[in-house]
Amino acid sequence: MHKPDTTNGTAPPFAAVTSEDDTVLVRWADGAESLFHCIWLRDHCPSGLHPSTRERLWDWGTIDPGIRANSTCLNASDELEISWTDGHVSRFASDYLHRRRYDDEARRDRLPPLDLWSSDSIRRRLPEADYHAVMSDDASLLDYHLTVRNTGFVIMRNVPIRDWVCEEVARRTAFTRETNFGRNFEVISRPNPNNQAYTHDALLAHTDLANREMPPGVQFLHCLEFGATGGESLLVDGFHAAEQLRAVDPQAWEVLTRVGLPFRFHDADCDVRWKGTPIALDADGRYHEVRYNPGLGAALDVPATQVKQVYRALHAFAARLKDPANVLQFKLQAGDMMVFNNRRVLHGRAAFDPNTGPRKLQGCYVDLDEWLSRIRVLTGQHHQD
Amino acid sequence: MHKPDTTNGTAPPFAAVTSEDDTVLVRWADGAESLFHCIWLRDHCPSGLHPSTRERLWDWGTIDPGIRANSTCLNASDELEISWTDGHVSRFASDYLHRRRYDDEARRDRLPPLDLWSSDSIRRRLPEADYHAVMSDDASLLDYHLTVRNTGFVIMRNVPIRDWVCEEVARRTAFTRETNFGRNFEVISRPNPNNQAYTHDALLAHTDLANREMPPGVQFLHCLEFGATGGESLLVDGFHAAEQLRAVDPQAWEVLTRVGLPFRFHDADCDVRWKGTPIALDADGRYHEVRYNPGLGAALDVPATQVKQVYRALHAFAARLKDPANVLQFKLQAGDMMVFNNRRVLHGRAAFDPNTGPRKLQGCYVDLDEWLSRIRVLTGQHHQD
Repeated sequence: MHKPDTTNGTAPPFAAVTSEDDTVLVRWADGAESLFHCIWLRDHCPSGLHPSTRERLWDWGTIDPGIRANSTCLNASDELEISWTDGHVSRFASDYLHRRRYDDEARRDRLPPLDLWSSDSIRRRLPEADYHAVMSDDASLLDYHLTVRNTGFVIMRNVPIRDWVCEEVARRTAFTRETNFGRNFEVISRPNPNNQAYTHDALLAHTDLANREMPPGVQFLHCLEFGATGGESLLVDGFHAAEQLRAVDPQAWEVLTRVGLPFRFHDADCDVRWKGTPIALDADGRYHEVRYNPGLGAALDVPATQVKQVYRALHAFAARLKDPANVLQFKLQAGDMMVFNNRRVLHGRAAFDPNTGPRKLQGCYVDLDEWLSRIRVLTGQHHQD
Repeated sequence: MHKPDTTNGTAPPFAAVTSEDDTVLVRWADGAESLFHCIWLRDHCPSGLHPSTRERLWDWGTIDPGIRANSTCLNASDELEISWTDGHVSRFASDYLHRRRYDDEARRDRLPPLDLWSSDSIRRRLPEADYHAVMSDDASLLDYHLTVRNTGFVIMRNVPIRDWVCEEVARRTAFTRETNFGRNFEVISRPNPNNQAYTHDALLAHTDLANREMPPGVQFLHCLEFGATGGESLLVDGFHAAEQLRAVDPQAWEVLTRVGLPFRFHDADCDVRWKGTPIALDADGRYHEVRYNPGLGAALDVPATQVKQVYRALHAFAARLKDPANVLQFKLQAGDMMVFNNRRVLHGRAAFDPNTGPRKLQGCYVDLDEWLSRIRVLTGQHHQD
């Protein structure tokens, strides 16, 4: 069972309100208290939303950051009513304000869970989904979205062996992300490859398109044929490896969250380059991305004083990412599809012998913005202002 | 004239080489010197590139960061030849190494120029391009790409009045970026709008889709009809405004480069949210993005201790962005197309009266990765390893 993503809609009513200096203290009927700053309240006045678009109508230059409350009260409609020094009067419903409270505990409670894994821990509870359930049932669709968000991947079973089913599954979420490889791609052994994926060599675990400012989010990789010897799939939880690194070598971890490593892909038609940190946190300080693709590593041009510490940090991180205890290895069957967060879960494969049989995968991407949006729509959060 | 983007291919030959501890010092025939670290050189050995894909063949865990040179010399082929403590021998051509040197001056010289502007300064030298030249001539195509990269926008003239010409122009660069608004969009006054752009209200200068992890890069906005009174276009150089803010209020500037501001767009089909810093620098410490869209501002949930400083900083930045000296205002004509970096140049419009005539724009996006890639291909950099 996943933790529900929405509040149950029964926010406690207001019990009391007091104002001091530039803050307003609200006590809720459940006894808890929330502090709000006057400028925050004035800026979040519900009258500032366009009635149809629900967009804000004023910018951050409109209101004096030093604004104060002339008076505060709980009015006859059970609203918090504030008269401001700029002459405006605001009225807040309790659920509107309760949902937006920003004490540390409330902020922490709003963060989604994060499920880190090693090879051993995940092997015993392999995240799976059924193609038919995901395609026909919104509860299964939501469950699979939450699993990929929290755990980073799902193996989908019973996928029809038909070209570009991956795109049909992707469209259950949203539109796909196009790249220089097109709107979708086929992974087979090719002559004169422009990319290691199109050989039959082993592929070290990596994240795709690390050379882009924003690498694609969720990857769909559908196995249509697999008769070749070898070619086992590898998956590694990059966030787990990063957290291990932080524990054993915090200095290396810090370097990899700060220094942009250059990546590049170039062929006859494009030359796409980006310098990104191998480990990236989001605005809430949570793991957001592991960017790791040795094949696309470009000439390192950090300041000379940082060269040695960057190599030491990369060496330490590489050891964590290749640690067999972290590498989940398994063989895809025709009719399986891996769906994984390419910004977190590294994927790779063992070498295979193309003379022993075919190996054909098809894939596409959907960005994380769309993945998380689908979760909000399936749980009704998109109806909340 | 733009500064050329490529070296002229005549890197100086090696003149001398010495090795000490974990570094190698190269003297070039022009008298300059470059220091390289042993681990850097061993990692960049040209033998580590796949012959066809040109991808790296080893990861950062393969080579001991403490590696040293057993011997260094300039061999009979004018290469730098190094015998390593791990038994490997590397040979470097001078141009390969010269192009990758990483002293501070070389790193600085590789950065593209940045052309900041105010309304007054840009009005006297409005960046323009001719549709027919861009569509038919690669030199004009390159020039227009460099202008958008360096200055942030171009007004393209003589664009045919035909549906979705914007996409034809975009495809001179690459594929387009799809969003929840589709692969392209039309800006007209609509009933029941889901977005302020689809009203006839004034639009404060903003960057599009600030609610996405990576907002679209270059925006194409083609004017097909414009008979309405009002509706003048606004453009603001966000990097110039940010640089002004840094000069007058460095504390506010620092806050806006560090604190993630929440943005959100939601309608019946999606709910896309992201917390991004209003000002973002890239790995080289240069301006990369201004993210500013008051209409999409969502509930601010930074830690309580930061609320007041965030509002003060936003108030100061808003003043710079609305300063008339920074706002270029002009009226598009049918047959004009604005092409601008949506990660830097804010755009907006004055209100217009839909009863006085039509106003119809069509647009689409191409991401910055593709914009910069096209510049590299047009200048031949994609052929260089």
